[in-house]
Amino acid sequence: MTAEDLAKNIKVLIFDVDGVLTDGQIFVIPGPDGKGIEAKGFAAHDGLGISLARLGGLRVGIITKRQSQTVAIRANDLRLEFIYQGQAHKMNAINEILTKANITIDQLAYVGDDIIDLPVMRQCGLAIATANARQQVKEVAHYITPNFGGEGAGRDAVDFILSAQGTLEKVIEQYLDEDNAAAASADVGTGNM
Amino acid sequence: MTAEDLAKNIKVLIFDVDGVLTDGQIFVIPGPDGKGIEAKGFAAHDGLGISLARLGGLRVGIITKRQSQTVAIRANDLRLEFIYQGQAHKMNAINEILTKANITIDQLAYVGDDIIDLPVMRQCGLAIATANARQQVKEVAHYITPNFGGEGAGRDAVDFILSAQGTLEKVIEQYLDEDNAAAASADVGTGNM
Amino acid sequence: MTAEDLAKNIKVLIFDVDGVLTDGQIFVIPGPDGKGIEAKGFAAHDGLGISLARLGGLRVGIITKRQSQTVAIRANDLRLEFIYQGQAHKMNAINEILTKANITIDQLAYVGDDIIDLPVMRQCGLAIATANARQQVKEVAHYITPNFGGEGAGRDAVDFILSAQGTLEKVIEQYLDEDNAAAASADVGTGNM
Amino acid sequence: MTAEDLAKNIKVLIFDVDGVLTDGQIFVIPGPDGKGIEAKGFAAHDGLGISLARLGGLRVGIITKRQSQTVAIRANDLRLEFIYQGQAHKMNAINEILTKANITIDQLAYVGDDIIDLPVMRQCGLAIATANARQQVKEVAHYITPNFGGEGAGRDAVDFILSAQGTLEKVIEQYLDEDNAAAASADVGTGNM
Repeated sequence: MTAEDLAKNIKVLIFDVDGVLTDGQIFVIPGPDGKGIEAKGFAAHDGLGISLARLGGLRVGIITKRQSQTVAIRANDLRLEFIYQGQAHKMNAINEILTKANITIDQLAYVGDDIIDLPVMRQCGLAIATANARQQVKEVAHYITPNFGGEGAGRDAVDFILSAQGTLEKVIEQYLDEDNAAAASADVGTGNM
Repeated sequence: MTAEDLAKNIKVLIFDVDGVLTDGQIFVIPGPDGKGIEAKGFAAHDGLGISLARLGGLRVGIITKRQSQTVAIRANDLRLEFIYQGQAHKMNAINEILTKANITIDQLAYVGDDIIDLPVMRQCGLAIATANARQQVKEVAHYITPNFGGEGAGRDAVDFILSAQGTLEKVIEQYLDEDNAAAASADVGTGNM
Repeated sequence: MTAEDLAKNIKVLIFDVDGVLTDGQIFVIPGPDGKGIEAKGFAAHDGLGISLARLGGLRVGIITKRQSQTVAIRANDLRLEFIYQGQAHKMNAINEILTKANITIDQLAYVGDDIIDLPVMRQCGLAIATANARQQVKEVAHYITPNFGGEGAGRDAVDFILSAQGTLEKVIEQYLDEDNAAAASADVGTGNM
Repeated sequence: MTAEDLAKNIKVLIFDVDGVLTDGQIFVIPGPDGKGIEAKGFAAHDGLGISLARLGGLRVGIITKRQSQTVAIRANDLRLEFIYQGQAHKMNAINEILTKANITIDQLAYVGDDIIDLPVMRQCGLAIATANARQQVKEVAHYITPNFGGEGAGRDAVDFILSAQGTLEKVIEQYLDEDNAAAASADVGTGNM
């Protein structure tokens, strides 16, 4: 089966965060209390991609080992359905998602960049590595994104799946249509966000 | 008509923000109240370009889907004439600008990087895509900037238009002349900006 | 002796910080008291690499000339054993580490990017330069990492040493095993980190 | 005369800031009072380069059009001798520096990246453009640095001048010598810097 064939089955799309939805840089800013504030840079292209994924019928989430307020804020901004932080063993979260979404693992796509993602990527229906993924991760991937994490790798994953499912162009026109966009839209920012 | 020919008609230049005047990264910093503070990186080259555009007789603005205090601050620093945030459907803002500036759409240039920019780019007089634009956006562009968003793509757009209009060199010398510069100058920073 | 041969002896791995565990950019943010807050971007790939190094039996530390709270926070997050800041003359710190770890200098690997690292790199058992190191530093290095500092150069160093020692694959599987990971794990973030 | 010949005369080295000592990105962070806080990323390689320049007998400074607390903080950290902010017309500051340093303009080197730097670069003894400089600036430069601003372009300028003056290797060894380094050292960070 080609990666395109595998992509046709996908109903749920899960992203790792650092190095996938960001470029992998963890910015540490010392806070007034001496503790660190962790900032991350997320790609606007990925935000729009998650709206497209939703319009295309995909359910979307993240699983990450780290625990940060920054990710919680961004996940909320993106209105993600599945949000798992502090997951050293990501298959636990994957199994919960499979139950919640009532799907089998061949219907789940996962985008990763480091070895902690290997257990999921070895088992899931479509394993996607970012262009900046470590070599061991690229070796198990069905598809490698043209862009680096934080520069549109997440969007590449959405485009690849929707394109394989034959819905990408229709979804884009839907997004651009005034009535549908409001319902699917995420990533709009609010207040000083 | 070549892109240079189209550029000769331009009187108003409108930029998208994320991915065009920035590299598309949205930095999320958790604030003291638990909400996110959104930071963005803008290119100094673009700031100077907007001063050149003004000296060359162009009227300049931004239209962006997101809503952020960061953009409001930068737009103010750049003394932009047209500032539209929170615009999921950018043609609405474009139509307002056409009325305010009393021009037709073939006199408006727009710089974009993502599919949300397609409706404007399909209609405006000069459609410019940044080097980092998604493929679907590049396909409808009359001109693609050599630089990425946030690394001078905005300046590339200004240089391209003023060069086509035959005014670039004169405008640069004007900018360097002590008497004219003060009037056109933007992007100087103030206080801790 | 090849670099791989030299790597077989290594028991302690020491990193410079700026340009090695970061991309060399020092972000200055003016603080409320007018003093500067220094922020840095660290690579998630390096954080996981330090966990792997520890599982592989290496002892890990940093030596840096600068003094910043940011580095203290990150070093704590990574649970580093040797932390030396404010070191204009890095051999002093190296000598202390040799005593504490009860090793000879041929058992110590050092990763650097600038001339301040030369005295250590001329003497230590395995001198590693990052891809972004200044030319004079690359010239004395036994091994040059494929990635830039802040984009995985630290992880490259760990992979190179563990691979030469024949333990990399085993260590990765250990890391992925539920029982061992908790003990070795670092870089998990806490609170708003 | 080659650029190397021109470099032999240099006694004062002046840098533009945005795009030269930074990558040209101006990070805007909304502050608690609604005003913007401007953050910039400076290269550690440049900081060390400025120490080398001083050891090699050069006097060093900056001239920038923008006004920011961030630059004041970094300039202080680097112990720069000449600091001019808010300079729309940089030749005014250059003339002051020539008087203060009691040199002629052929003894002054200037590193720039944008057209605002042209008046100085057309007149000074050694005009250096960064790798990321706008095309019009590269055209008037005697030397173009291999690295981009914010990634070591400042250090490249120092290395080029000291190398032409035949002092680079000696200065590096001096820097590494315990007794001389303390006197010349800059860029060490203090407190939460």
